Amino acid sequence: MNQKTAIAIHGGAGTIAPHLLTPQLEIDYRSGLKAALEAGNKVLKSGGTATEAVLAAVVELENNPLFNAGKGGVFNHLGQHEMDAAIMDGQFLKAGAVCGVKNIKNPVLLAHAVMTKSPHVMMAGDGAEAFAKTVNIEFADNAYFHTEHRYQQWLDIKGTENYQLDHTAKSENKMGTVGAVALDKDGNIAAATSTGGMTNKKFGRVGDSPIIGAGTYANNETCAISCTGHGELFIRSVVACDISCLMAYKGLTLKQACEIVVMDKLVKIEGEGGLVAIDAHGNIEMPFNSEGMYRASLSVNGEEVVKIYE
Amino acid sequence: MNQKTAIAIHGGAGTIAPHLLTPQLEIDYRSGLKAALEAGNKVLKSGGTATEAVLAAVVELENNPLFNAGKGGVFNHLGQHEMDAAIMDGQFLKAGAVCGVKNIKNPVLLAHAVMTKSPHVMMAGDGAEAFAKTVNIEFADNAYFHTEHRYQQWLDIKGTENYQLDHTAKSENKMGTVGAVALDKDGNIAAATSTGGMTNKKFGRVGDSPIIGAGTYANNETCAISCTGHGELFIRSVVACDISCLMAYKGLTLKQACEIVVMDKLVKIEGEGGLVAIDAHGNIEMPFNSEGMYRASLSVNGEEVVKIYE
Repeated sequence: MNQKTAIAIHGGAGTIAPHLLTPQLEIDYRSGLKAALEAGNKVLKSGGTATEAVLAAVVELENNPLFNAGKGGVFNHLGQHEMDAAIMDGQFLKAGAVCGVKNIKNPVLLAHAVMTKSPHVMMAGDGAEAFAKTVNIEFADNAYFHTEHRYQQWLDIKGTENYQLDHTAKSENKMGTVGAVALDKDGNIAAATSTGGMTNKKFGRVGDSPIIGAGTYANNETCAISCTGHGELFIRSVVACDISCLMAYKGLTLKQACEIVVMDKLVKIEGEGGLVAIDAHGNIEMPFNSEGMYRASLSVNGEEVVKIYE
Repeated sequence: MNQKTAIAIHGGAGTIAPHLLTPQLEIDYRSGLKAALEAGNKVLKSGGTATEAVLAAVVELENNPLFNAGKGGVFNHLGQHEMDAAIMDGQFLKAGAVCGVKNIKNPVLLAHAVMTKSPHVMMAGDGAEAFAKTVNIEFADNAYFHTEHRYQQWLDIKGTENYQLDHTAKSENKMGTVGAVALDKDGNIAAATSTGGMTNKKFGRVGDSPIIGAGTYANNETCAISCTGHGELFIRSVVACDISCLMAYKGLTLKQACEIVVMDKLVKIEGEGGLVAIDAHGNIEMPFNSEGMYRASLSVNGEEVVKIYE
C-alpha cells in the first residue's frame, strides 16, 4: 500500500473564555498547534510511520510552554511536575505508558521506550524514571518545567484542597492534555497522549491519558484516538475502546461512533472534554462537548484545519 | 427487584504443575477459595451489595498467604511488596484503583476508598499511600508481607534481570492475581481485582489488574469481569471492555463473548490467562487458556464449584 497520509492533534479541551484569549495568545496557540502538526506531517511525508509521526507531534507540544504537558506542565500540590503519557501502535496493538513521572523532558518518549525497549506496557513513578536512565531518556531539572503562568496558577490555590484540571476559571483552558493521531503511507495508524495533570493535584492521581483503552488507543481495524477531558469520567467510560468497539461490532463509522460517545454518553454523565480520532481510511474526527478544544488537522487531501472554538 | 445472588472468584491462572501441587497444598488452596467464596456469599445473603461482596471475597484472598495479593504478595527487585488493585460498581459505573502501593494491608480496600471517598478513579504510589492515611486505611509493616515461600522465590532470581509473573517454573502458579465478581439481590453487579505483581519486578511495572476496562470492569448492562494473566497482553487487548462491548454491540451472550476473547483473541497473541465473569442474570463464566486457574463460584441455584484444573 502507498496511500496518502493524515494527522490530527489536540492541545486540550475545556472552558476557553474568549475574553481571556488575547489576540496575541490566540496567535501563539495557533502557531504552536501548527508547528506540532507540521512536525508530525514532516515525518509522514518523508515516509515515517504513524507512530513516529504522533511522537514528533506530541514532543513538539510537550516542548511548547503553552500546553499542559512536558515543559508547560502544571505544578502539583508539592510544587512538582508529575506527568503521564501513552502511545499505541495500531498495526501491532503495541502500547507503552508511564504515570507519575518527574523530571522527564518528554514523557511521550519514555512511553515509547516502554513500548519498544521493555517487555512491559505501563510503568509508574520512580520505577519508570529508573527505567528512563537505562534507555538514555533525557531528564530536565525543575527549573526547565518552571513556567511563570503555571506557577501563578499554582500560587492561587496552593495550600488549599482545591485542584484544577488545568487552571483557574480566570484563565484560558481547563483540561490540559496534548495528543496526536496519524495515518501513514502504509495504512497504519497510531495515537499518543501526554499530560501534566491538574494544578495542585494530590495523591498521585492518574487520569485517562496513560490508560490504554480510555485516553489513548489505536487499532488499524478501527481507529486511533487521543482524548482530553475530565479523566475520571473518561476512564469509567473506557472512551477510546468504546468508540473502537462501536465501529468493530456495530459497524458504525468513525464519525457516528465519536458522536455517540462524546456528544451523548459522556454528556449524560457530565464528562466534559473531547478527542481527536482517525481511521485507516484517513477520516478525521475532532469532537468535543466543552466550550472549546485546541486542535488541528491535515487531511489526506491536504486540507488544513487549526481551530479553538466550534 | 429481589432476585437470587451469585458470586465467582479466582486466585490466579497459569502453569500449575500437578506434581508440585501436593495433596495438602491442594486442600489448602481449595479451602482458601471456599473461604473467600463464603465471605462474599455471606454479604450477598445478608442483603449486601455486589460491591460489598467482591470486597469481602478479595479481602479474604488478600489475607491468605497462599495467593499473590495482600499478605501473600511477591517480592519486587528491591525486596519490597508493591501492589495494585481495582474495584468497579456496575450500577453507577463508578470505579477506584491503586497502583504501586506498599505497606497497605488490603489494597482492594484502598481502591474502594478511592472510589467512594475521593473525586478520583486512580492513584499511584506514595500519593495513594498518603491518601490512605487520610481515610484510615490499615497499614502493615514489611514483616506482615514476608512469607517464606515468596521469599525463597525471590532469592532464586534476585540480582538477575529475570522477573516472573508469580514464581518460578518449579512452583505451582504463574499469574498471581486474585479477583471476584458478584450479583446482588437488587440485580447489580461488581468486580474487584488485587495483585502483588511479579517476583523481582522492576521499574514500577503496572499490569492489567488496576486498569479499568482491561483487568477489571463492571457494567450492569453487560457484565462484571476480573482477569488474571499476562497483564501486558490483557492491557493491549482491553480484555474486560472488549467482552462487555461484544455483548452490548454484537448481542453475544456472556459465554460467547468470553469464548471469543479468552480462547481465540488472547490465544492468538499468546496472552495466557483467564478471568471470572458474571452478568445481571447470574450467568457465570470462568474461562482460561492456561493450564489451570484457581477458581470457585456459587450460582443463583446454589451450585458450588471449586476447581484448579479444567
